[in-house]
Amino acid sequence: MSPPPSTDGWTLDSQLAADTVPLGELALSSIRLVNDSQFPWVMLVPRRPGAVDLIDLSAADQALLAAEIDRIARALKAVTACDKLNVAALGNVVPQLHVHVIARRKNDLAWPKPIWNVAPALPYAPDALADTCAALRAAIDFDKAA
Amino acid sequence: MSPPPSTDGWTLDSQLAADTVPLGELALSSIRLVNDSQFPWVMLVPRRPGAVDLIDLSAADQALLAAEIDRIARALKAVTACDKLNVAALGNVVPQLHVHVIARRKNDLAWPKPIWNVAPALPYAPDALADTCAALRAAIDFDKAA
Repeated sequence: MSPPPSTDGWTLDSQLAADTVPLGELALSSIRLVNDSQFPWVMLVPRRPGAVDLIDLSAADQALLAAEIDRIARALKAVTACDKLNVAALGNVVPQLHVHVIARRKNDLAWPKPIWNVAPALPYAPDALADTCAALRAAIDFDKAA
Repeated sequence: MSPPPSTDGWTLDSQLAADTVPLGELALSSIRLVNDSQFPWVMLVPRRPGAVDLIDLSAADQALLAAEIDRIARALKAVTACDKLNVAALGNVVPQLHVHVIARRKNDLAWPKPIWNVAPALPYAPDALADTCAALRAAIDFDKAA
C-alpha cells in the first residue's frame, strides 16, 4: 500500500506510524489499525497539518470527521460484533490530532475501564494481522464514496 | 434552573445526574459540569432516547453534536487556558450516550494519562462550583444560536 497522501505538508507522526498499520484513506483521514491484538482498535488521523485538538479543524472538517468516525465505527462493529464502541480524541502523548475508535467487549482485558495504560500492546501475529486488516478493509469499503 | 427538557421520552440517566450539575441546554444536548474539582470537565448528553453509541444518532444529529462539542470545547479552553482538550464517548459504565470534554493541564493529577480511574471525584466547594458554572455559562453563551 502506498503511504498516506501528503496534504499541504501533512505527514503522519512517527510514533503513530510505529504503533499502527495502514488500512486506507478516506477523504479527510488516514485510517490505521492499532497493532494491539488485545483490542480491535482503529485510528483516524485527519490529514491537516498542525491540527492538535478537534477545535483546530474547520466546521466542515469537523462534520466530515464525524461522518468518517461513523463509517469506521460501523465497520468495526460489523466485523467484531462488539458490545460497545469507545471513541476518543485524547492526544496527551502524541499531539498530532488522532481519533481512537475501539470495539469493546464485556470480557475484554480492560472492561469496563478505558483501554489506555491497562497493559502493554501485544502485536498481532502476522496471519491475524493480515486477516484483521482484510476484514476491516472490506467492511470500510474504501472505494465507496462517503 | 429547570430540569433538562424531556424529548420524546428522553430522561437523564440517574448516575449522570448524580455526578454532574446542569449548565444549560443546547439544541441537541444537555450540558452538565462534572462535579470533580480536579479537572475542568463538561459532559454533553444528547437528548435522544435509547442512544448508547455515537452511531445510534442520525447523520444530522452527529453533525450537530460535532458542532456542540466544538462550542463546549472552545468555551472550556477560553475559561481554563488549558494545554489540551480531551474528548471522548466511552459509556462502558453508564450506557446512556454522553460525551466528555475535559480541559487538561500538563501539571494536572493524571497528565499525560486519561483522567478516568486516576482518583475519586473531589466535589467542588460551593463557592467554587458557583463560580465555575457562572464562568462556563458565560463562555458557552446559551442564548446565542448555534
